[in-house]
Amino acid sequence: MNVDPDLSPLREAVASAGADGYLIDDDATDSDQRYVSGFTAPDPYQTLVTDDGVHLLVSGLEYGRATAESGADTVTRRAAYDYQQLVAEHGPHDGKIRMLEAFLEDQGVETVAVPRNFPTGTADGLRDRGVDVTVESEGVVEEIRATKTDWEVDQIHQTQRANEAAMARAEELIATADIAEDGTLVHDGEPLTSEFVAEEIEVTLLRHGCSLDETIVACGADAADPHDRGSGPLEADELIVIDIFPKDKETGYFGDMTRTFARGDPSDEARRRYDVTREAFEAALEAIEPGATGADVHGAACDVIEEAGYETLRSDPSTETGFIHSTGHGVGLDIHEQPSVSPSGGDLEPGHVVTIEPGIYDPDVGGVRIEDLVVVTEDGYENLTDYRVGLEPVAESD
Amino acid sequence: MNVDPDLSPLREAVASAGADGYLIDDDATDSDQRYVSGFTAPDPYQTLVTDDGVHLLVSGLEYGRATAESGADTVTRRAAYDYQQLVAEHGPHDGKIRMLEAFLEDQGVETVAVPRNFPTGTADGLRDRGVDVTVESEGVVEEIRATKTDWEVDQIHQTQRANEAAMARAEELIATADIAEDGTLVHDGEPLTSEFVAEEIEVTLLRHGCSLDETIVACGADAADPHDRGSGPLEADELIVIDIFPKDKETGYFGDMTRTFARGDPSDEARRRYDVTREAFEAALEAIEPGATGADVHGAACDVIEEAGYETLRSDPSTETGFIHSTGHGVGLDIHEQPSVSPSGGDLEPGHVVTIEPGIYDPDVGGVRIEDLVVVTEDGYENLTDYRVGLEPVAESD
Repeated sequence: MNVDPDLSPLREAVASAGADGYLIDDDATDSDQRYVSGFTAPDPYQTLVTDDGVHLLVSGLEYGRATAESGADTVTRRAAYDYQQLVAEHGPHDGKIRMLEAFLEDQGVETVAVPRNFPTGTADGLRDRGVDVTVESEGVVEEIRATKTDWEVDQIHQTQRANEAAMARAEELIATADIAEDGTLVHDGEPLTSEFVAEEIEVTLLRHGCSLDETIVACGADAADPHDRGSGPLEADELIVIDIFPKDKETGYFGDMTRTFARGDPSDEARRRYDVTREAFEAALEAIEPGATGADVHGAACDVIEEAGYETLRSDPSTETGFIHSTGHGVGLDIHEQPSVSPSGGDLEPGHVVTIEPGIYDPDVGGVRIEDLVVVTEDGYENLTDYRVGLEPVAESD
Repeated sequence: MNVDPDLSPLREAVASAGADGYLIDDDATDSDQRYVSGFTAPDPYQTLVTDDGVHLLVSGLEYGRATAESGADTVTRRAAYDYQQLVAEHGPHDGKIRMLEAFLEDQGVETVAVPRNFPTGTADGLRDRGVDVTVESEGVVEEIRATKTDWEVDQIHQTQRANEAAMARAEELIATADIAEDGTLVHDGEPLTSEFVAEEIEVTLLRHGCSLDETIVACGADAADPHDRGSGPLEADELIVIDIFPKDKETGYFGDMTRTFARGDPSDEARRRYDVTREAFEAALEAIEPGATGADVHGAACDVIEEAGYETLRSDPSTETGFIHSTGHGVGLDIHEQPSVSPSGGDLEPGHVVTIEPGIYDPDVGGVRIEDLVVVTEDGYENLTDYRVGLEPVAESD
């Protein structure tokens, strides 16, 4: 299971910084290291990229798996540098520095470039021992990661399949709920809450090999804050925003999708905002092609929303209602990564995987957001999302 | 929801390093920052500890929540330092450095201590702008975190409650499985697999507000490698190790528990190893008291296991069978934290929360591990785990 990335832009950046190698010292939370090494482990490990190849330094516990599964050209055990003895003699911090010094020396590396988030303790420790450490501050690995290989697109597509199953479960719960006299949605005799729908989404994802930390199931005024996760009973006649961004537990690749539903009789204004958002969503999709910029695509969504009379951050940078975020972001091993579909978004290129997710928000009316995940192709885009767009929820079995 | 920590040892360490403040620049994955600030956010934010208090720097999106929920004395929006304008003028990296420079200046801080894992890009950027940055390399925040407040012990206890429910579900599946002619455990007509039991554990945890990335349900030779998650059908007559370490999604505190079960007729040697492990487990618990060291407690477990004729890393540092890990570790906002119950473990103190988890491993026999989570008290320990120890699985409804 391996992305087999083209690291030549990284090697060029390292060479032009006058360094012999690029060193990462992090753990499973660092997607750059996972990407570069084709390996992940719960405890910290190190990856060194040189002209010779990709070199991993791991604990004995991880050695077998790293050798079998990683994309590295060489895998070395810490014990090769007497790590335990160094720690016993010099303490855990100094012991680690001395081990890394020996590892770099072994690979013929005297000057290293490191990512911005490289630990200062390690950088200063290596410097104290005569290793030259420079920060690569342009984020070249993030930039390489922005363009997905076919294998990566397949992984993202697969996570999005799980996402569709979870969305179908949420839509079904809303579609089949009863409506109480006070307008509350009711499921199996109990109020249908944001929390319950989120839990059902998460269980569905688990059954599909995915996990997630947060889900948004936000109704009414809650949904007017794009970061509000939502809470309490869901209501008829109100807009309900459901935003799901799961991660496949094996591959680490994310999916991302948002739908907005309403039961009962939403207001004309709510319906109008839904239609305008949908039109902006379609206009943004239409604008995607190689050569177009993320800014162009964002502009296409803003055009529709402003035309309909709502504010955007383009028409009023300080607005707190209307379209108050950017149109999209890259998705991969991180849920937010390059490229950006925003005013600062650069050229879109084949293999870029981005969300398209315009929305319109106002505490008085609620929130609307519609989001698909697409991959840019040679002549436009391919939609990685196969899920109906519609305000009225439908149960699959209907 | 707040730990309200005593940061005086941190302030002393900062002062003795000649610094005016302690700066953290990280995101939700950094438990130290969550602990110090009483706040967590998906995107990066900054925490500064001075003699005046704890100061948070957050995005506008997080400002309301940080003000309402965090334990910080002051909360400042990035916009207070014209962050967007700085980014537009100087790019994202330099813009952020200039914002931090202004934030530090505002708090009267000219020299900062930072944690070992502070980003080198930020450290070097601040240094380039005349701020003195020193690494605090002793891990003083980790050390403060080792001693839990009553509130923290309650949170860990609560996660352990969810863990007990998940373990009960797993035990029930194993207890009620049929045994096929070839020895495979069978549930609802299908082979009962590691993967299915792990999924049921995870769904149970989700229903209790917890999540986890990995669960171990390992049978036979799989379980002889303490890091193997297990796969495939579970077998009668074999040892099955189940290790669950969930995290409460709201509070962030972990629980941790392991049980070993066997259906059918496990070998005499397997039964003997279970009994020895249980005796080592009880001896280690018995050894816990303030004044004892983690090394003492580990030694108590090793004594029992060696006495019974099995190797430990103490009797043979290179052994690959027997008791091949340490007796325990601290648990809190991280699943592995201070203090250590190992040969290098220092004094145990009231408020330390540690696992006690001896085990005996051999590919030819399988693995056994028994693990509870306890808090050290003034006169011994309180067990935070309420779950029967026994090799033969019992369904709750039996």
